[in-house]
Amino acid sequence: MTAEQIRGRIIDVVLRNGGHLASSLGAVEIAMALADVFNPESDRVVWDVGHQAYAWKILTGRDAQFDTLRTMDGLGPFPCPAESRADAAVAGHAGVSISVAAGLAAARDAHGGDEHVVAVIGDASLANGTAFEAINNLSGATKKLVVVLNDNEMSISRPVGSVSSMLSALISNLQRNELFGLRYIGPVDGHDLRQLKEAFVSARDDQRSVIVHVVTKKGKGYEPAERDPTAYHGVSPSNGSCGDTAKSWSGAFGDALCDMARRDGRIVALTAAMKDGTGLAGFAKEFPRRFYDVGISEGHMVAFAAGLAAGGMRPVVAVYSTFLQRSVDQVMHDVCLPNLPVVFCVDRAGIVGADGATHQGLYDFAMLRCLPNLTICQPRDESDMRALLDEAMNRNGPTVIRYPRGSIQAVCAEARSDVRKPHVAIWATGDWLWKAQAVADILAAASPSLQCEVVHARYLKPFDSELLARQRAAGMAVATLENAALAGGFGELIGADMRFGWPDAFIPHGSPADLEKRYGLDADSIVARIMEFSLHQPSIFNS
Amino acid sequence: MTAEQIRGRIIDVVLRNGGHLASSLGAVEIAMALADVFNPESDRVVWDVGHQAYAWKILTGRDAQFDTLRTMDGLGPFPCPAESRADAAVAGHAGVSISVAAGLAAARDAHGGDEHVVAVIGDASLANGTAFEAINNLSGATKKLVVVLNDNEMSISRPVGSVSSMLSALISNLQRNELFGLRYIGPVDGHDLRQLKEAFVSARDDQRSVIVHVVTKKGKGYEPAERDPTAYHGVSPSNGSCGDTAKSWSGAFGDALCDMARRDGRIVALTAAMKDGTGLAGFAKEFPRRFYDVGISEGHMVAFAAGLAAGGMRPVVAVYSTFLQRSVDQVMHDVCLPNLPVVFCVDRAGIVGADGATHQGLYDFAMLRCLPNLTICQPRDESDMRALLDEAMNRNGPTVIRYPRGSIQAVCAEARSDVRKPHVAIWATGDWLWKAQAVADILAAASPSLQCEVVHARYLKPFDSELLARQRAAGMAVATLENAALAGGFGELIGADMRFGWPDAFIPHGSPADLEKRYGLDADSIVARIMEFSLHQPSIFNS
Repeated sequence: MTAEQIRGRIIDVVLRNGGHLASSLGAVEIAMALADVFNPESDRVVWDVGHQAYAWKILTGRDAQFDTLRTMDGLGPFPCPAESRADAAVAGHAGVSISVAAGLAAARDAHGGDEHVVAVIGDASLANGTAFEAINNLSGATKKLVVVLNDNEMSISRPVGSVSSMLSALISNLQRNELFGLRYIGPVDGHDLRQLKEAFVSARDDQRSVIVHVVTKKGKGYEPAERDPTAYHGVSPSNGSCGDTAKSWSGAFGDALCDMARRDGRIVALTAAMKDGTGLAGFAKEFPRRFYDVGISEGHMVAFAAGLAAGGMRPVVAVYSTFLQRSVDQVMHDVCLPNLPVVFCVDRAGIVGADGATHQGLYDFAMLRCLPNLTICQPRDESDMRALLDEAMNRNGPTVIRYPRGSIQAVCAEARSDVRKPHVAIWATGDWLWKAQAVADILAAASPSLQCEVVHARYLKPFDSELLARQRAAGMAVATLENAALAGGFGELIGADMRFGWPDAFIPHGSPADLEKRYGLDADSIVARIMEFSLHQPSIFNS
Repeated sequence: MTAEQIRGRIIDVVLRNGGHLASSLGAVEIAMALADVFNPESDRVVWDVGHQAYAWKILTGRDAQFDTLRTMDGLGPFPCPAESRADAAVAGHAGVSISVAAGLAAARDAHGGDEHVVAVIGDASLANGTAFEAINNLSGATKKLVVVLNDNEMSISRPVGSVSSMLSALISNLQRNELFGLRYIGPVDGHDLRQLKEAFVSARDDQRSVIVHVVTKKGKGYEPAERDPTAYHGVSPSNGSCGDTAKSWSGAFGDALCDMARRDGRIVALTAAMKDGTGLAGFAKEFPRRFYDVGISEGHMVAFAAGLAAGGMRPVVAVYSTFLQRSVDQVMHDVCLPNLPVVFCVDRAGIVGADGATHQGLYDFAMLRCLPNLTICQPRDESDMRALLDEAMNRNGPTVIRYPRGSIQAVCAEARSDVRKPHVAIWATGDWLWKAQAVADILAAASPSLQCEVVHARYLKPFDSELLARQRAAGMAVATLENAALAGGFGELIGADMRFGWPDAFIPHGSPADLEKRYGLDADSIVARIMEFSLHQPSIFNS
């Protein structure tokens, strides 16, 4: 296939299925040259943040399946060893490719193997501390690794000025061959296939570790994406399956924060290269001096926020659940231990859908609720988001506000407050309150002995233990619905009799609705399980 | 006080109470010059890994209390804002000082304040990814911050060669004023008080951010520590309170690993600057080519281990519980998701004592047990350590083996297998099995209706759910004893009726025995609570 054909295929499928367009278009020739100079099956190519890697998928035996990209049971959104031998590593989070590749190279050295190991890393990922640690350790790990630096002078959202200053410093060092004993080749035109192949052959055949500095253009070959690569970083599917026009949780957060920031000059906002995704674009525009995009540096972001809070500001850290995992230690050591008023607005908390297993936001609650001083809550709708943000701003300690990807679903839980002598209490996280409501409605219609009290688990830590005690004293069964991992989750915390959440397995990509059905988390499945439970608890349900 | 007097005070107290000697002796003149040039109360000095900061404590109003260093209710082991206004931040984990200081400086800029902000960071901490991220973001955060680089050419355990290569590269860049817009002053003789003060005055009065490069000698002024700074990094108290001669858990791990490595060439070992602390010194000596000390780079370490495992090796990551928090995301994304056979030997899992709140190893289980594919276990003694390591090596997936600081306590749980019709099942993590045994013995002597079955919770995930079901079916009450946080802990996991573990608060420094007593976790307190519970559960206890 020609580069043009590959680009056409990528554009066609991504506009249909959604996905990462600009990065993948920029790395087409890199993938072609790698597939040509190296052996995708026997050599080991590690892509960093695999949203550059669509061309690689197409070129390594997956063209026929490429139409299924990001659909349930179809091709995954990122490289995945379980999908193809050509994918040497999982690559959904940024900055780890050099570490993983160094490990593969060290293992090769130990075995006396002759496979080549290649890491492909973008300039934005290089700003991540783990990548730096890896470069710092490279010479001690292996004598021979090829690092391809895909320099598109672009992190996910601009501007992260310091990234390029760091990159320049690194490159200037490498060019003088001062640093880390790495040979430097470059800069290479990343859209000139001949130049790329020559550089990769030279890197492959060298006895030393080599960094090949490739300059590419994000969105290359698709004019709208070239013009505005940020807008085409992630593309939503055009078939309208997610096309509801309701307000997104991210948008509700961003609007609420702007309103509060107009009244409270202490409020500053932080993101790690996710300004648009987290809904902070408006804030950044209105309050440029109170906005920090630190690049893909989650650990620094949280410690920096701790300093801001200690200095009297009210920092709001907007971060995806899955990426907050990169800074769990800073949350504990720098924020919770000194009990500082940092507000973590944890977006994509819950199933995310097509971005798959690396991005599901299922672990934040289990990982963080063991931390003393931390309050954790989840809003039910936009006005509740505002109320919880307001409460967080007035708290002398750290707060996590978690909410999922996608649109806010209307819910009117109060409608069921007229239930007398309910048999089941259904505690639901805010985003699944509508589901609890639906379950309660179906059960009420099915049987007079299946009356439910629906509870918004608004504060998850600490939760409303008095309400729970009253329900227990009244002999009610307790069910929990949480858009999070069951292991360590809210159901366990309150000792629920029936716990609905995500099981102890990595959840693959697929639409949230399909995944919920598959894992028994749609309203009908939940109703069926509560009905079955009721058969074995006659003491409760026949009262 | 003169430098000599301060050193005498530090040596005297640390040899008595235990503590971090070599680093603190190296930073005496730095602390004196800082206290002189800056205002400890109104300026903000952030120490990175505060074990350099004893002189700072002495000089900022805490000399009189210094004899209580690291003792319960006495001075803390690290800087702590709750202890003194002179401590601008918590500083037990490495690499975050520049981030926190940048936050304080940005807050000052926003307020229009005139306080100076200073970060003091050692060269080993600078190898941590978070510090790199902070330097990378410095110019965007503030125009004015003073960074003191305490360059003792020494990380905690040698050799981490790449640290100095990185440091040289950074320094050479700074000297050319290429990097990050930072002014460079240095190198300054870190034991020449006049030179130091001049440099700090110059840095303080500059309008730009400045890095002051100070060269110090670890252990300065105490000949044994100068000769062998690694041996004097951490010093145990000389009063014999921890002076039992039983084998340590770290030692048992190190010996077992060496034995296995002699038989299995796939085994490699990794540490993040904790070779001695984790018991890997023997392994490093015997298998230098199979040993990786990556410096203070926990994130890289885990991703690197993932690559090694994917390449067919059997990497063993030896890490303290509290520092594993730095790599939770890599454990999830790079190890658990691709289900790679990395063995995490999690040392200091449980209360650690005098190192205090930053170092208590209480959160590893709660944070990690939500991760699919991960097996978590804890041995009861040395032979069990060997058995669990062996089982881990034969598992096609990741394993956490957790064990505490200190010595292995003998236990003979089998002695109670003769109990007929027990009323209580006590599930205990391996290190507290002896305590469960003691509790069972006291209860058995107290009353025939308080017979206990003691269970070693050897596998915590997945646990022996069949045994639990049998106990529940027999009408037994279930208690758990775990040396970990109760929130998200094992007691919650198995729905125990009585849960003994560490409460939802940061646990300060003190001896483990004293802390256990204070928090009701000594055997007598546990007995009392089980007896009280039994009064309210006549159905179980009068059977």
